[in-house]
Amino acid sequence: MTNVLAKMKIRKMLAEDIGFGDITTETVVPPEAVVTAEIVAKQHGILAGVVEAALAFEEVGVLIKAMESDGKPIKPGDVVMKLEGPARSILVAERTALNLLMRMSGVATSTSEMLEKARRVKPDIILAATRKVMPLLSYFDKRAVRLGGGDTHRFRLDDCVLIKDNHVKLAGGVAEAIRRARSASFSKKVEIEVRKPGDAPKAAEAGADILMFDNMTPAEIKRAVRLLIERGLRERVLLEASGELDLANVAKYAATGVDILSSSYMTFRAPAMDMSLEIRVGKGFKPKR
Amino acid sequence: MTNVLAKMKIRKMLAEDIGFGDITTETVVPPEAVVTAEIVAKQHGILAGVVEAALAFEEVGVLIKAMESDGKPIKPGDVVMKLEGPARSILVAERTALNLLMRMSGVATSTSEMLEKARRVKPDIILAATRKVMPLLSYFDKRAVRLGGGDTHRFRLDDCVLIKDNHVKLAGGVAEAIRRARSASFSKKVEIEVRKPGDAPKAAEAGADILMFDNMTPAEIKRAVRLLIERGLRERVLLEASGELDLANVAKYAATGVDILSSSYMTFRAPAMDMSLEIRVGKGFKPKR
Amino acid sequence: MTNVLAKMKIRKMLAEDIGFGDITTETVVPPEAVVTAEIVAKQHGILAGVVEAALAFEEVGVLIKAMESDGKPIKPGDVVMKLEGPARSILVAERTALNLLMRMSGVATSTSEMLEKARRVKPDIILAATRKVMPLLSYFDKRAVRLGGGDTHRFRLDDCVLIKDNHVKLAGGVAEAIRRARSASFSKKVEIEVRKPGDAPKAAEAGADILMFDNMTPAEIKRAVRLLIERGLRERVLLEASGELDLANVAKYAATGVDILSSSYMTFRAPAMDMSLEIRVGKGFKPKR
Amino acid sequence: MTNVLAKMKIRKMLAEDIGFGDITTETVVPPEAVVTAEIVAKQHGILAGVVEAALAFEEVGVLIKAMESDGKPIKPGDVVMKLEGPARSILVAERTALNLLMRMSGVATSTSEMLEKARRVKPDIILAATRKVMPLLSYFDKRAVRLGGGDTHRFRLDDCVLIKDNHVKLAGGVAEAIRRARSASFSKKVEIEVRKPGDAPKAAEAGADILMFDNMTPAEIKRAVRLLIERGLRERVLLEASGELDLANVAKYAATGVDILSSSYMTFRAPAMDMSLEIRVGKGFKPKR
Amino acid sequence: MTNVLAKMKIRKMLAEDIGFGDITTETVVPPEAVVTAEIVAKQHGILAGVVEAALAFEEVGVLIKAMESDGKPIKPGDVVMKLEGPARSILVAERTALNLLMRMSGVATSTSEMLEKARRVKPDIILAATRKVMPLLSYFDKRAVRLGGGDTHRFRLDDCVLIKDNHVKLAGGVAEAIRRARSASFSKKVEIEVRKPGDAPKAAEAGADILMFDNMTPAEIKRAVRLLIERGLRERVLLEASGELDLANVAKYAATGVDILSSSYMTFRAPAMDMSLEIRVGKGFKPKR
Amino acid sequence: MTNVLAKMKIRKMLAEDIGFGDITTETVVPPEAVVTAEIVAKQHGILAGVVEAALAFEEVGVLIKAMESDGKPIKPGDVVMKLEGPARSILVAERTALNLLMRMSGVATSTSEMLEKARRVKPDIILAATRKVMPLLSYFDKRAVRLGGGDTHRFRLDDCVLIKDNHVKLAGGVAEAIRRARSASFSKKVEIEVRKPGDAPKAAEAGADILMFDNMTPAEIKRAVRLLIERGLRERVLLEASGELDLANVAKYAATGVDILSSSYMTFRAPAMDMSLEIRVGKGFKPKR
Repeated sequence: MTNVLAKMKIRKMLAEDIGFGDITTETVVPPEAVVTAEIVAKQHGILAGVVEAALAFEEVGVLIKAMESDGKPIKPGDVVMKLEGPARSILVAERTALNLLMRMSGVATSTSEMLEKARRVKPDIILAATRKVMPLLSYFDKRAVRLGGGDTHRFRLDDCVLIKDNHVKLAGGVAEAIRRARSASFSKKVEIEVRKPGDAPKAAEAGADILMFDNMTPAEIKRAVRLLIERGLRERVLLEASGELDLANVAKYAATGVDILSSSYMTFRAPAMDMSLEIRVGKGFKPKR
Repeated sequence: MTNVLAKMKIRKMLAEDIGFGDITTETVVPPEAVVTAEIVAKQHGILAGVVEAALAFEEVGVLIKAMESDGKPIKPGDVVMKLEGPARSILVAERTALNLLMRMSGVATSTSEMLEKARRVKPDIILAATRKVMPLLSYFDKRAVRLGGGDTHRFRLDDCVLIKDNHVKLAGGVAEAIRRARSASFSKKVEIEVRKPGDAPKAAEAGADILMFDNMTPAEIKRAVRLLIERGLRERVLLEASGELDLANVAKYAATGVDILSSSYMTFRAPAMDMSLEIRVGKGFKPKR
Repeated sequence: MTNVLAKMKIRKMLAEDIGFGDITTETVVPPEAVVTAEIVAKQHGILAGVVEAALAFEEVGVLIKAMESDGKPIKPGDVVMKLEGPARSILVAERTALNLLMRMSGVATSTSEMLEKARRVKPDIILAATRKVMPLLSYFDKRAVRLGGGDTHRFRLDDCVLIKDNHVKLAGGVAEAIRRARSASFSKKVEIEVRKPGDAPKAAEAGADILMFDNMTPAEIKRAVRLLIERGLRERVLLEASGELDLANVAKYAATGVDILSSSYMTFRAPAMDMSLEIRVGKGFKPKR
Repeated sequence: MTNVLAKMKIRKMLAEDIGFGDITTETVVPPEAVVTAEIVAKQHGILAGVVEAALAFEEVGVLIKAMESDGKPIKPGDVVMKLEGPARSILVAERTALNLLMRMSGVATSTSEMLEKARRVKPDIILAATRKVMPLLSYFDKRAVRLGGGDTHRFRLDDCVLIKDNHVKLAGGVAEAIRRARSASFSKKVEIEVRKPGDAPKAAEAGADILMFDNMTPAEIKRAVRLLIERGLRERVLLEASGELDLANVAKYAATGVDILSSSYMTFRAPAMDMSLEIRVGKGFKPKR
Repeated sequence: MTNVLAKMKIRKMLAEDIGFGDITTETVVPPEAVVTAEIVAKQHGILAGVVEAALAFEEVGVLIKAMESDGKPIKPGDVVMKLEGPARSILVAERTALNLLMRMSGVATSTSEMLEKARRVKPDIILAATRKVMPLLSYFDKRAVRLGGGDTHRFRLDDCVLIKDNHVKLAGGVAEAIRRARSASFSKKVEIEVRKPGDAPKAAEAGADILMFDNMTPAEIKRAVRLLIERGLRERVLLEASGELDLANVAKYAATGVDILSSSYMTFRAPAMDMSLEIRVGKGFKPKR
Repeated sequence: MTNVLAKMKIRKMLAEDIGFGDITTETVVPPEAVVTAEIVAKQHGILAGVVEAALAFEEVGVLIKAMESDGKPIKPGDVVMKLEGPARSILVAERTALNLLMRMSGVATSTSEMLEKARRVKPDIILAATRKVMPLLSYFDKRAVRLGGGDTHRFRLDDCVLIKDNHVKLAGGVAEAIRRARSASFSKKVEIEVRKPGDAPKAAEAGADILMFDNMTPAEIKRAVRLLIERGLRERVLLEASGELDLANVAKYAATGVDILSSSYMTFRAPAMDMSLEIRVGKGFKPKR
């Protein structure tokens, strides 16, 4: 089931990249050349964005002969997609399709790597994205996180309450902020940032659904978890550790006893995955002069 | 001079991120709270995206009290922007503004770092971006590269001819591809990918304006440059080295004698720069209950 | 804090209604005529849409001299907004502004009426909208419900899981459906439709956050609530009664013991509120011939 | 013949409602489930919006197996559409399609009811909509009025001159206003609001094509008609009665001798019609676990 | 009163023309340079598009110091607009603004010229545009025709019925086509193409509001007018002559007795008017190096 | 290979022209009428816009049975396209399709005529468009110029540097302006306007790629060319003559020795080409009453 918004965005990506036309392809490649092509992985990782790349090619009339499944592990040399169609159409959509594929696979791969490290410590831990995503591309970033095994977390400012430090300041305290926030809608969860262990019980008692330990050390987080357990509040809340998590420290945070780790590493710091598109020109092919 | 398209895109970024409304801010923060806020750098680097962040805040009625110049070097603790306005407005645009700033500053910083390494070897070398940018965000990525001291290279498929390997295959050879491409428009340059030293003189003779040595080793590139010099063709063409360039190998490529290095490192692999927004609540501030 | 999306939509509403121009106003009203105008309520109710109407007028250069607050009760004759500006501008935006105001005030008013009846029975009951709203206008419908004292409920298909009858069928049962849905995101609540009392405990045990009793009689709902209490599950879940609720039967549903009533009455069946715009032409005004 | 604008709007409706994805359907319903579904009427009325609902389903790849004709009378239990396709696709478009169908059928039904009452009194009378329609949805509202047997009246501010009370004030009188308005375009009709019987002959003599008796009692309208007949002006103009017309008083207005009745009842006060979508899961269906 | 749609379109024109940025101005012109500029007419004609050009400049922050009125006759050397602002902003909007001005003034000028020739023969004759306008620019074309003294005629396919030859064929005759068309809406006029004199009385009797004599010679049109007079039908209908009208033959058509002449000459064949923008750099100006 | 942007624009053209619906066709033409139709040329010229017209018809479900190639010479009576489909669909898209075809063929034809005159004098001369094109339609105008044998020149402000008189003034001279402009990007050419012969060598020496002799007489241009030859600079630069070129004077400019002529004649002054669409109603056709 293709997302309607994604389809519209991919059409716009193509329009923006093509502009007045692919002046190279239109002058160099004969219109009648029909070819096959393959997109080939050049690194290990988790594949993401095949559905999106397919939409880009279909938009310009290229046939998708075969495609790997999004979410699948791949290795260098794996053929990710097989295409057939006018050479001009394949070339005009190539960059847009690859940019999506490479970005999304990079995000999925780093999600998967980070998750693996965390789950060695705590097998059922959740790794979530943040709202630190590429503007206009948040759908694709969140989808890639999910394909890598992660949780999307909030999509926008309207689908979950997340009370941050600045909000607390302006509301005059944790309890009051939560009280107000609960009027948002019964259908939304209320999450609140906690910056010192002592605030955790307060927030849980005030009715927060999720506590986010933000920029706290693993030791501080452990203390906060202990406080919650001692006061019988642990079961009432989900606990999330956030901050500067990356591949190096994720295991330590996973060991703190929280339910969820969240990080912008996957969408803001991890590299894209390399892939390439190769046109297969059969033996009989004779470029027309 | 603000780019009209950028303004429209930033409006759209906000609309997408806000959705039905910032349910946290609207319930927690009183509408009458007017505050100041600062955006503070947390890393060393080159600043980029201040103009864009300002547009995001202005769109929701926040006053820009002060802002650093895009392109300036910054260090941790530097105040990048000072804002004043309704707390609700500042909070609603915060993430969009920071996402742009952090991404663009990350791109500018890595451009600057890479360029510095290259220029130690060859002081007038140009470092260029590629078309491996975030779809829908290419304006911002290219602008960030420029702010970091780099060259934007092609914006789209229509502003410079770039004949790649796949095009050459379909045209039946380097010379024929260039001949065809020259009909695109006298106002556009013609660049061609060269994959073996021996093809360089052929391409230069056929009238290419720029040769791109793609995925060739520094040694191969040197050989190609030598061939061009020997045949008196060096002055006719600009030479660009491309491929898997990064901070580790850029100096070696700079030493090959080319005029331009191009890399997707800055836009596809380098991390975003960290920054944060702090609301300054004055002494007299009393959150209304 | 104006919603950015709302502003864009109001601009589009004006563009669509004006088309090639207001051919009446442009031919009949002299460009130099500057007037004041008032929007006057013609019925009792709750005001909603003033912010939106103001945006419409501001878009064409009309000054808002005074405006009542959204959410306030009004009576016939109350002046809702005072405007000043070119007569042409006021007239060109009149219908768009009034259509928003009348629709939104109608929704807010019916929400308030229904809520009042329900709260006589159960003072803390929540009345929520559904996703039966006007397509493209859901932001305005949801906002009007909120201004009338109601809860917005889900905004879209992405901000809360709501497992309906058709989903249960396709998943092979209530428990399995809930189990799958919990993977959506820890940040989203899981709600499920329950059509017979006996399914309520099953759903609560399976981990649903909210049970929606859909198209059940008040008696059936009471039975379901009793079952939950008996099994010690009542505190785990929020309970919502939905179906053909309207002004006539809302009290009966409020008496069933649920936490939330939801209805499409306000957005799909209640009438708009009547208002009118009167241009005030001062004594000294002499229409130019 | 599908309206191009309608198609674009329906795509946008879907995009807005789906957002980042239907998190319920995507987690609960297996991608391979292909089902049939039926949309069933739950009330008596005139069907409208089937073409629009079909566009919504087709946009996400659902096959329309059968559909009733827009404009046809329906009764509870009637199957309005039969669908076949991926269960996920049917569910994702369900609400958008039903919202259109229910709104449009509600408008068509109330138009038909009102028209029937009016035509018992005057068989050739026309019942017209006004510009009191849902912003952004005026195409759908007007089309529904037409499917219910009504007249669309003005679509926008540019397709017919309609001189209202406020215009007359600013132009300095009925005759002058009409004189000016006639310069709009020979291709447009000129209609003018008349608020007292004595103004009717004046307006007819000044060259108006249509007189709208706005907020006048049936008795006053009759007097105005008589005056026109006495002065031999009746044949020159079409006469329209407007104001607070509804099912209760429409017959009285129809008896005044006017040619057209116009009312916002159908689009601003009448309820939507109820319908539901039922997924038919065949005997052999086994939900995959 | 600025048309909202026009404003949105002008913003889009700028965005399309600027793309990633005005690479000339951004590199060559210092950001701090503030200048005045004048737009100067280079031909005789009727001015149109000043309001539109002003919108383009205002969009990028240029101040309009003075502007001539749209619709005014101008001569070579006349200063049409005076601007002040950042040199970069003036230069970036220059072409878009001039393109609108030159096109619209060309249309207005040819309308005025043609009208003058026609009115020498018949002083109250109307000259109308057709729907042969530039797609996406019809608002501007129609407005220019009006500024030149012409009539806009139909804006779109929805604001006036115009039964053409192909429609008549498919309806089975003139009378039947008119009968059907009258159901469109009482608020719209019905116009029909007549291709032989003998059809004119038939069309008038069937209730058409306007007859368009299409591709008939002046002699044939005269015969048609005579036939209408003889049968007492002349007063019932407006008469329009259309076809290949231009400056050379317009007088002959004006002499046929019709009320309206319509032509695509102004929008499809007449040249744009020449203008230029001159930057005034004061004596004290020193370009920064 | 269809341009994605063009397709989106053509959809928008249709939406704008159709509005609420083609009220003529929808009332007059029975929905079941399926017909064939032909678009017939009425003048000599070069065909352009067939691809675009086809997109318009396909958008509304019309089958393209046959179509001539864009760029081909045509004569009166030539059938340009054969269509088959619902009569309603053909009629609703007719005007949009023809407007594109007629405009584009007019531009292509005048390009071809002008080029022919120029090439009689200098067989390899290039004729280029300018940026004086219809706003929002520049893609179509530039494509038409190319189909007529011309060169598109700059598409936007971002694909080639073009330093004009106003820029030189603000930069403080030709050499300094070029020096600055060369920093734009190595991938873009630098062109500069030259207004007196003596400036030509200066500009060539400063590193411009193209010199545009703007508003200079043929004699002055010849002098400039001679100066360049004398100083051994001729081979370094492309030379373009611009200004008020048209069919009458183009040969003189071609004789000056420049490489390129550029003119806005084709897009701003030349007439559209006339064509018509004829519905073929077969013998057996009986319009339903």
